[in-house]
Amino acid sequence: MHVTSEQRLDDGVRERAFTLGDIPGFLWTPASASASASAPVPLILLGHPTLGLARMYPRLAARARYSAAQGFATATVELPGCGDRPRWPAMEQARAELRRTLQAGEPVGDELVDALILPLVDKAVPEWQTALDAFLALPEVGGPVGYSGGVISIGIRLAAVDPRIAAAGLFAGSYVPRAMFEEARKVTIPLYVLLQWDDEGNDRQAALDLFDALGSTEKALEANMGGHTGVPQFAGEAAAQFFTRHLK
Amino acid sequence: MHVTSEQRLDDGVRERAFTLGDIPGFLWTPASASASASAPVPLILLGHPTLGLARMYPRLAARARYSAAQGFATATVELPGCGDRPRWPAMEQARAELRRTLQAGEPVGDELVDALILPLVDKAVPEWQTALDAFLALPEVGGPVGYSGGVISIGIRLAAVDPRIAAAGLFAGSYVPRAMFEEARKVTIPLYVLLQWDDEGNDRQAALDLFDALGSTEKALEANMGGHTGVPQFAGEAAAQFFTRHLK
Repeated sequence: MHVTSEQRLDDGVRERAFTLGDIPGFLWTPASASASASAPVPLILLGHPTLGLARMYPRLAARARYSAAQGFATATVELPGCGDRPRWPAMEQARAELRRTLQAGEPVGDELVDALILPLVDKAVPEWQTALDAFLALPEVGGPVGYSGGVISIGIRLAAVDPRIAAAGLFAGSYVPRAMFEEARKVTIPLYVLLQWDDEGNDRQAALDLFDALGSTEKALEANMGGHTGVPQFAGEAAAQFFTRHLK
Repeated sequence: MHVTSEQRLDDGVRERAFTLGDIPGFLWTPASASASASAPVPLILLGHPTLGLARMYPRLAARARYSAAQGFATATVELPGCGDRPRWPAMEQARAELRRTLQAGEPVGDELVDALILPLVDKAVPEWQTALDAFLALPEVGGPVGYSGGVISIGIRLAAVDPRIAAAGLFAGSYVPRAMFEEARKVTIPLYVLLQWDDEGNDRQAALDLFDALGSTEKALEANMGGHTGVPQFAGEAAAQFFTRHLK
């Protein structure tokens, strides 16, 4: 992990921009975690949509500062094919097909969803695991680790395959390939799932079916009114309470 | 309102058992609300199932104490045909038919649900409104008023017809007559709806449809794992935070 820049935010939160190989990312640690003598703080991985870190930065930094106030370190990395990272032809083709389909008002079919999501999950999850190795090697960051938000299929795969992830807050707001329903059954950690009831780009029934498929015995679904970006502030607070229950 | 007994609970909460005409009930006020000089505290009406107040007392008192710690008065009255209150033949017949149906493992049909719930709602709601008149006449109790839990159709009717109810926490855990879906559209106050995902006596899809039908622009659904009586403690805390947001 190569730190490319570092700053202190207003509230004492330490923000490090880094690259890990050719993957950029951010790590935020609470002011209290900076003293070398203090105990390591638990970590939450901040998932995000495929819009690129630069565009997502304000929302990510706000989530990081809120989490720091609860005593959590947070970190995120750029997704494959997003931001400044190299595109690959199949993904570009799938995205172009999605734009065409949505502009034409046509339904987004299973094949297109698979093409958009499955290669992304296959590439992203090992990268997040490698990044997690690097975060946990820092003396000020410890387990247990949570995963929060972003592309729900990435969160599900990560929760299913990496035993270091102890709890996950998922956002049921992106397309879900049929194959992920089977993977969802393998997830056994505590889950807090947010759903926007009127999310124009999301299939509500599929989200409810996915929640039902998740194998965890402790899982909660919170549905709020409004569209994709309308998650109310109190839902974020409830998710923070979920992580405090499970990571501390 | 005729107070029949009064006691102080451990935490200073004042509990009054009363009768209102021939309807028994309880009123709990926080220790802080007893001083004659203090401002009136907001009130939450505690709904409950049709098992009778005596049987429900421990859970109601626990909810009352928890609410008092948040600064709320709480109150409840016995439902018609329950506890020591007189039965009526049609209700007894519907209950007998429900027992027979469940023992035979048959589905509970719409006609039976109507017979069980609609007369109960028709009788109970005016009684709760009369009780609310009495509670709000006390100097230590003020508005705004919340309604919490119990038979969801009673909560929906009350929220639809009584403008004093400013927010409601509903428990989607009882049979819902088809007619209530239409009434649900008339509800416009903020709502927090709890659903137990594996409630053996509840139709999950009907609960989701009912949530969808509710007319409020601010409504949240929280679904947790487990059966009817397995509502986790943190769900109660989330509901309390909902009331604090809307009644204070």
